[in-house]
Order: sequence, then structure tokens, then C-alpha cells
Amino acid sequence: MGASQTALPRYIGIDGGGSKCRASIYAEDFTLLGSGVAGRANPLHGLEQAFKSIEQATSLALADAGLTAEISGQLIAGAGLAGLNVPSLLSAMTAWQHPFKALYLTSDLHTACIGAHGGQDGAVIITGTGSCGYARVDGQEICLGGHGFALGDKGSGAWLGLRAAEHVLLSMDGFAAHTELEACIKTQLQVQTSTGIVEMLAGKSSSVYATLARSVLQCAAEGDQVAMAIVREGAAYISDMARALLAIKPPRFSMIGGLAEPLRPWLAADIACSISATLAPPEYGAALYAKQCHQNNDSN
Amino acid sequence: MGASQTALPRYIGIDGGGSKCRASIYAEDFTLLGSGVAGRANPLHGLEQAFKSIEQATSLALADAGLTAEISGQLIAGAGLAGLNVPSLLSAMTAWQHPFKALYLTSDLHTACIGAHGGQDGAVIITGTGSCGYARVDGQEICLGGHGFALGDKGSGAWLGLRAAEHVLLSMDGFAAHTELEACIKTQLQVQTSTGIVEMLAGKSSSVYATLARSVLQCAAEGDQVAMAIVREGAAYISDMARALLAIKPPRFSMIGGLAEPLRPWLAADIACSISATLAPPEYGAALYAKQCHQNNDSN
Repeated sequence: MGASQTALPRYIGIDGGGSKCRASIYAEDFTLLGSGVAGRANPLHGLEQAFKSIEQATSLALADAGLTAEISGQLIAGAGLAGLNVPSLLSAMTAWQHPFKALYLTSDLHTACIGAHGGQDGAVIITGTGSCGYARVDGQEICLGGHGFALGDKGSGAWLGLRAAEHVLLSMDGFAAHTELEACIKTQLQVQTSTGIVEMLAGKSSSVYATLARSVLQCAAEGDQVAMAIVREGAAYISDMARALLAIKPPRFSMIGGLAEPLRPWLAADIACSISATLAPPEYGAALYAKQCHQNNDSN
Repeated sequence: MGASQTALPRYIGIDGGGSKCRASIYAEDFTLLGSGVAGRANPLHGLEQAFKSIEQATSLALADAGLTAEISGQLIAGAGLAGLNVPSLLSAMTAWQHPFKALYLTSDLHTACIGAHGGQDGAVIITGTGSCGYARVDGQEICLGGHGFALGDKGSGAWLGLRAAEHVLLSMDGFAAHTELEACIKTQLQVQTSTGIVEMLAGKSSSVYATLARSVLQCAAEGDQVAMAIVREGAAYISDMARALLAIKPPRFSMIGGLAEPLRPWLAADIACSISATLAPPEYGAALYAKQCHQNNDSN
């Protein structure tokens, strides 16, 4: 990396999720200097793991930028993490002896939204392994869904997979219609019996169920009635969630996550038309959040 | 205990379940001599735990009968356990250095059915924390459902609880109707927010969800539309399962488990009328199974 003034490392943005943690280092003008990805960093799933993943992602981002470890002490960090609405987790994260010059914490939804809309107000729905919605307009904030597998997360990959597995087990017992979805799920799991399906899925994490979503979406696209009913129910929920977010008039609305594109044709037409492309990733949003907080701190 | 010939300990019947293990010692004429209850003994949830629970329940039953530990070596044991359809678990259980004179293994459904019908052919549906069905007629056997939480077990306590929690979270986000069920579930869990509900339930075992069934059944009995819809869907599945079992013409049909009575008014009328009282508990069925197997062994 060159040593021009603008390229000096200044911010680090951290997106801590349930399956991975991504950190990106930016210059003062938000030129990207380097990125790193480590394991999960969701405080709900373990604080020590979250600290470790943030540190690992930071080390990898520093190495990617050609910087030494000591530089972390000069970086102004922003981190978007799930679970900070739980008071005990917020105080533990706040008390963390982090390696940065400063660390500003907010929800992963907030940083995703800041990134998607380039720092401006807006709304986002995230549909990947799980599902949730967020909007922020003039300081007013709404969070919807995101209650987790198997309590909520309707319309998410894990939800589609669970509903499909439930139906296939019912149909194999003779209590529901046999359709192509049954053959697709059996082929994907490489098992032929109910016992085999249960052995592959019982007690498994949401990400294992989410792998089945591609079979469900493929069968639905090919007109399988059961798969279509499942996808329609999930998409109707996502459309309802979008309507609730749009009610507070966000200037922009984006969909994020692995299911954003495949679900789009199943959403209500007015919702599908209102989707804008995301402008930047969540870790960019986290760095931008850190800059805003740090400027406010300095001006106080 | 008296030392008359008929009261000599001869059989031990073991009912190993997902939450507890019950063992009962019987004389040759099946007079009950003593019983003991220990922790869970489901090989699917851990073999060592299953061995330990069976040994503890046996010790407690021996003590209850006023017998010493050495007597176990004279007992002919029968055990009904879940998970023996998994080949690795069956071979591990068969290889176990058990403390009995002989040990005969079969499924927990089979011993429950033998007990319910006093040793004769018949059908049973078990609806407690989970749900499943079993029938045996002239050597023909059917097993239905029982795929476990949250993949299957429709109509069970855990299923009712999960469906109710899902609905309450949707209604609190504004995506489903508010009914009395919402207040009942919040009161039972002693929380008022979505986050509170998620903290109480996320990642919890099926038995935690099953505790919510009483709120669901109570609200349904009082005419709550959401609770009624959930209970009707579960009961319709149990009625379908009963019809599939009755198709092979079992001489008797019984319902077992904590939800058997509360679900009865919600079952199809023809199914509700076809229910016979259970004649004896599963551990009695397990002891009867041991006697039958042992006699067959001796006569070979």
C-alpha cells in the first residue's frame, strides 16, 4: 500500500454475524485498504467467540492491507452485532478491552441499513439463513421479525427448509400429498427414509435447514404445488414486513442476503418495484457509523 | 414383602423415555413388587445416560420392593426404548453388560401397546411432549409420526407450544391477530416483550415448549380463535393418524400421554368413540414382553 495521506488507515468496520465476521479497513476518504473474514461473532452465541472472531477478522484485514498488528490501536472501529438489545450482552461488549483507538457498537441491522443506503436513512429486509427487517427515519427506528429459528424467521432459508422437511415427513407417512419436492429433498439429503431425513436434520443448526431452501425454491419455480405454497407463505410475510417498514416513509428500501433475489418474483408487485440496490456492504456501514459517532464525540 | 412362592421377584419391566425411566419389578403371577423412576433413558440422547438411568431406576425399584441389589441377576428384564431402529444404537444396547439374567429389547411404542392392551394386539397413539402412533396386528406392525421436535410431532404438547409462540411473536410484530392467547402465553412465561419470549424459548428443549400447551388448550376451550385453530390442526392430524392405524383392524385402540384426555374433545367423533381405556402401563408391557420372549427362548 502507498503511504499517501488519503490512504492512511483510519476506520475499521466490523459486521459480526451468526455464521461469519467480516472486517474492512478504510482510509479517511473511505478507500478500502483491506478485508478479513473469520468465524461467527454473534454475542448471543458466546461472548468469547465473538471477541475472538472480531480479533481474527481484524488481524486478517490488517494483513490484507499490508499493515502490522500495532496499527489496530490507531483505528476507529464500528461494529454491528446481533444481541446488543440484551442488556447483559451490551454491558459485556462495552466492557471489552478491545484493541482499537475507539469502538462504537450498534446492531447488525443498523450497520447493514447504513451501508445499503450510503449513510442515509432507509429500510432493509435481510433474508438469508434468518429473516428480519429494519428501518430508520429521522431518528425513529423499527425492528421487525428476527426472532430466530424455529420460533420466527418466516420466509428465511431455514424456515423454507423446515417447512419443506415437515411436509415431506408428513407425506412419507401418508398424511400429505406426494409431490416432486419429496424427491428433491431426499436427493439433496442423499437419504430415502423418514429415519434418514430425521437423522440428517434433528437438532441441527438453522444453517443446515437453510441448505434445503434451494430445493424448495427450485421446485416452486417448476410449479410444484407444495413448494409454491411454502414459498408464497414466506414471501407474503416478507411483503407484509416491507409494508410495515415503508409505512414510516424511508427514502430508500433494499433487500439483503442470499434469499433476496430468489424471493423477489414471489413478493407483492408493489413491494418488488420499491426495492433499490444496496450501495455498500454492512462493514462499510459499520465504518461510516464509527466515523459519525467519533465526529459527534469530538465536537462535544 | 412376604416370601410366598408367587411373590418371588421374576420380571422387571423398563419404560425408557425422553424425560424419565420407570422400572417395575413383578412376581411370576405379575403381582407388582416395587417401582422406581430415574432420569431420561433415550439412547438417541446418549447411551451412557440411558444405561445409567436404567440402572438407577432398577436400584430404586429393588429398594422399593425391599430387595437387595444382587437380586437383579435373577430378573428377566424387558425394556422399551426409543431409537432402536437406528442400527448403531441397537447394537450398542445389545452389547451392554447389563445386570439382569436376560434382557429383551424392543421399541417403547411396542411395550406401551402391549401394556395398554394387556398383552393382546392393538393400536396406541402417544401424545405427550411428542406424538406418535403404533399398531400391531398378527405380527404386522405400523409406526407413524414421532419424527421429533420441531420436524414433526404434530398435535403434541411441544408442537402446540411452538405454534402458539410463533403466532404470539407474529401478533406482537403486527403481522397476526391479537387474541387472548397472547396474554396467556406472556403471563405463563412471565415476560411482556418479544425479546423476553425469545430469551425464554430459543434453543430450549421440547419439554419447555410443551409446558405452553396448557395455555393453548385453556384458551381453545374458552373459544380463542387462534388457539382453537392450532388445536384443531393438531387434533385433525391425530385423527388422521388414528384412521391409518385402525385401517389394519386392531382389536383395541388407546390414547396414552398427558394430552390424550385434553385432545379427546377435539378429535373426529368416530375416532373419539373408538378409544378404549389402557389396561396397564408401558413398564407392565415391557415385563410381559420379557416373559413372552423368555418362554419362546426356553421352548427353542
